[in-house]
Amino acid sequence: MRKDKEQIKIIPLGGLNEIGKNTTAIEFKNEIILIDCGLKFPEDDMLGIDVVIPDMSYIFKNKDKVKGIFLTHGHEDHIGALPYVLKEMNVPVYGTKLTLGILESKLKEHGLLATTKLRTVESRDVVKLENMSVEFIRTMHSIADASAIAVHTPMGVLFHSGDFKIDYTPIHGLPADLARFAELGKKGVICMMCESTNVERAGYTMSEKMVGETFQRLLTDCEERIIVATFASNVHRIIQIIEAARRNDRKVAVSGRSMENIVGVAIELGYIDVSDGIIIAIDEINKYPKNRIVIITTGSQGEPMSALTRMARGDHKKLSINKGDMVIISATPIPGNEKPVTKVINQLFKKGAEVIYEKLADIHVSGHACQEELKLVHSLIKPKFFIPVHGEFRHLKQHAELAKGLGMNNEDVVICNNGDVIEISSDEIKKTGTVNAGQIFVDGLGVGDVGNIVLRDRKHLSQDGILTVVVTMEKDSGKIIAGPDIITRGFVYVRESEDLIFEAKKRVKAVLKQCEQQNVKEWAVLKNTMKENLRGYLYEKTKRNPMILPIIVEV
Amino acid sequence: MRKDKEQIKIIPLGGLNEIGKNTTAIEFKNEIILIDCGLKFPEDDMLGIDVVIPDMSYIFKNKDKVKGIFLTHGHEDHIGALPYVLKEMNVPVYGTKLTLGILESKLKEHGLLATTKLRTVESRDVVKLENMSVEFIRTMHSIADASAIAVHTPMGVLFHSGDFKIDYTPIHGLPADLARFAELGKKGVICMMCESTNVERAGYTMSEKMVGETFQRLLTDCEERIIVATFASNVHRIIQIIEAARRNDRKVAVSGRSMENIVGVAIELGYIDVSDGIIIAIDEINKYPKNRIVIITTGSQGEPMSALTRMARGDHKKLSINKGDMVIISATPIPGNEKPVTKVINQLFKKGAEVIYEKLADIHVSGHACQEELKLVHSLIKPKFFIPVHGEFRHLKQHAELAKGLGMNNEDVVICNNGDVIEISSDEIKKTGTVNAGQIFVDGLGVGDVGNIVLRDRKHLSQDGILTVVVTMEKDSGKIIAGPDIITRGFVYVRESEDLIFEAKKRVKAVLKQCEQQNVKEWAVLKNTMKENLRGYLYEKTKRNPMILPIIVEV
Repeated sequence: MRKDKEQIKIIPLGGLNEIGKNTTAIEFKNEIILIDCGLKFPEDDMLGIDVVIPDMSYIFKNKDKVKGIFLTHGHEDHIGALPYVLKEMNVPVYGTKLTLGILESKLKEHGLLATTKLRTVESRDVVKLENMSVEFIRTMHSIADASAIAVHTPMGVLFHSGDFKIDYTPIHGLPADLARFAELGKKGVICMMCESTNVERAGYTMSEKMVGETFQRLLTDCEERIIVATFASNVHRIIQIIEAARRNDRKVAVSGRSMENIVGVAIELGYIDVSDGIIIAIDEINKYPKNRIVIITTGSQGEPMSALTRMARGDHKKLSINKGDMVIISATPIPGNEKPVTKVINQLFKKGAEVIYEKLADIHVSGHACQEELKLVHSLIKPKFFIPVHGEFRHLKQHAELAKGLGMNNEDVVICNNGDVIEISSDEIKKTGTVNAGQIFVDGLGVGDVGNIVLRDRKHLSQDGILTVVVTMEKDSGKIIAGPDIITRGFVYVRESEDLIFEAKKRVKAVLKQCEQQNVKEWAVLKNTMKENLRGYLYEKTKRNPMILPIIVEV
Repeated sequence: MRKDKEQIKIIPLGGLNEIGKNTTAIEFKNEIILIDCGLKFPEDDMLGIDVVIPDMSYIFKNKDKVKGIFLTHGHEDHIGALPYVLKEMNVPVYGTKLTLGILESKLKEHGLLATTKLRTVESRDVVKLENMSVEFIRTMHSIADASAIAVHTPMGVLFHSGDFKIDYTPIHGLPADLARFAELGKKGVICMMCESTNVERAGYTMSEKMVGETFQRLLTDCEERIIVATFASNVHRIIQIIEAARRNDRKVAVSGRSMENIVGVAIELGYIDVSDGIIIAIDEINKYPKNRIVIITTGSQGEPMSALTRMARGDHKKLSINKGDMVIISATPIPGNEKPVTKVINQLFKKGAEVIYEKLADIHVSGHACQEELKLVHSLIKPKFFIPVHGEFRHLKQHAELAKGLGMNNEDVVICNNGDVIEISSDEIKKTGTVNAGQIFVDGLGVGDVGNIVLRDRKHLSQDGILTVVVTMEKDSGKIIAGPDIITRGFVYVRESEDLIFEAKKRVKAVLKQCEQQNVKEWAVLKNTMKENLRGYLYEKTKRNPMILPIIVEV
């Protein structure tokens, strides 16, 4: 490979070997751009962590070269890290109307709205930089205003699919701009990055229109109040719910902060037409009979503070579940959320609701392309090189196999890790190095301070709690003048464990006396001796392993 | 309802509004029997808990009346609590061969094997007690030797389905004894308890035979080593794997402690025929070419210490995953296990294996009846009264609706909670009271000592860790003579938080000085003041809420 400035570098910083924090850097000559900048939700073992963002240290080290951040769509795993990143560098952010509308709410919460340079684009708009141009191309996804991105360089086009499905009967707006895909494929795409979420699924993803037909069927002849929970960001779904309500002469109320926000933005942008006064406030619901109401709410994932979950628990301030309500959960549980969702479903049933969820009816379709749609895009784009993105390893691997099944050569398909530096020349794609990459934990106000040690301790504490031993010693002699006192939390129920604690104190006293006699004075040794002795004793008696915290006070 | 000793009482103690710890007591005159005695695996918020068993206090209070424990089959959620229960009362346990074979291993681990009275039964055997008789009836499930149970009383038959599916082409043994179901229905079943796990699914569960056909297809012309992970208890699945191996001239090795145990028991009982020497030891694998080996292993649920998970992680002592291995995961993730399973799948792909799992091929069928099979059983048994069991509320509710859809009256179908006392007379079924019921947590050696307070503390510790403040005061004056010292675990990374800790100490000192000046000496007040002051400060600075443990040492 010629080692000169003609190489394009693709540096994924998130979204590979995971679902979440999608972030890709493209570097050419002296310019860097980012495609997306997302967050990931914490895994079960990331105790106390609020969100996970990508390690952007390479980008921050080169922030002068960063010319723009280009967003494919407004989901959290594509824009959620921006408030943290924009605190470190103020770079223009390009996106479609709804995408920036959603981002604005976030920036406002973080106090960054006034200073961030937001640039709205439309489909086929091209942003010209010094050495590259970035084009937005309309696609379809489970959120309106989704785009693919084409980066035009002297060496050819880099194509990034964003998240997409092929829906020939879209609810709002035009279908994916497949004509432009074909034009780019004809022009010459040197490398495609394409999402891999549904690569395991054969066939096609069903059209969003089908969900509308199910809503229509459910609402027809229904004499009860209807509550529909769905993703706030799925504007097309909301449009269909409103449309079905309209056809069945029902008013619509909206519940849940993010739902109110995004529906508000969508109405402002003219995506949802409510000029006939169909939307009413929650407080007005009681003015109508039950069979003339539809409530659209957050909580399709069983999120603890969401509107539907609070209704199911009985602690929503304004809304309760009435016997006979039809509650439609118009989403499938994201992997990991199955239990919170079924918990809410059970609570709703117990309150006498009739609950319709994905196991019982077709009230959700995926926003991600299945195998036949992926093959279509590969065949239109005809890239020279291919990097599967947006998936765990099993998705990336199977997407690579799909590409090879269509005729791509093994050496032209690269499965990467976050942090890999992939260099592309006219005749070769090659991994040439790595940069820092990984996860940064956000906990409260702290970004990156919680790391493995803190998490390891939280894990230990969560399993068997903590036992604190406090001993007060005289400064020079090392004699015990107070204690040992033992305080536990999360270990045993103290009232029933007095003997255990009493015996533990005796042991600590005995082992410290031994140390005194052997003239051992160094605190580190004393503490370790107490720890080891107690650990063995407690495990023998309880088969539990609490964290042991020896504290020596010297007076 | 006549209040006399002719009432039969059904008292569910586990398995309602949950999947797990199935335990039902039946009380008639002076006799009590238990049908099953299972455990439940801990939910995510049951930190540090090993298993959950039912609250059996009602049974222990009446242990002299308990005449026998009757087991429907050998799954953990039907027999897993027995080692804990049999420590409190030594009651004969009745079950089929494989069921008791599996139970024996457990009792041995708990040192109860010698003293427990195990009684083996076969299909259609009847155990005569003073006032009732208990009959075992052959069914099909995802474990061999599964039974339904009929309790014969002067008032009629109580029928308990156990866990079952209707499989007309069973792999081993005879199909479910539907003729006996019909005979009982004709004789007169006064009340049926029937499992509800798959009531959401329309149609039929596929036959186990179909999985065998998939195995055959995968093994034919395969030139690689094959590893199959499945539930150790699914003897029929293991028979099919061995049969496919046999037909393709491969040897079979078994890996994983529970797999080795149960396969051993099944061979002893003659359920698996390995007289042709098809089974080899793990150590002999290397004597054969890769295309002549099948390894059957534990780990189909991504269990951390299972054989397949250790192979995927690379720390199995005897087996590693080789590039090209075909790994078949012949199970679906139990709800809650999706992430551990996909983690293993990703690791296997990374090691170069070809992984076949349920999304990609038909390599698993459920062991639970779907709607049409449930309707069949209702129609054969024709009970007067019906109690849906073995399900969360949504399952019980939908099963009740299914029964009413077949013509049962509303008042004859009862959805219960654990602990309800259901009395049955010849003309009425009625809830007449409750007994203690609920969950007992087992953690290490402790049974029932970990309760809400300990769990609440573990939860708090897991989120933001702990901050311990130690202050040494002079006995009478209340003057601070050492400290405050602050030690944290799981809260912040200390090296980066020195300012925070320094400031926190200052605040504690200041607030204690105030207390001294106001002559406040009571420890409870001092500790609370320290706690509140610190909590506010730490939250303001970090938006985190660690547990705060103030410790006062007096000298």
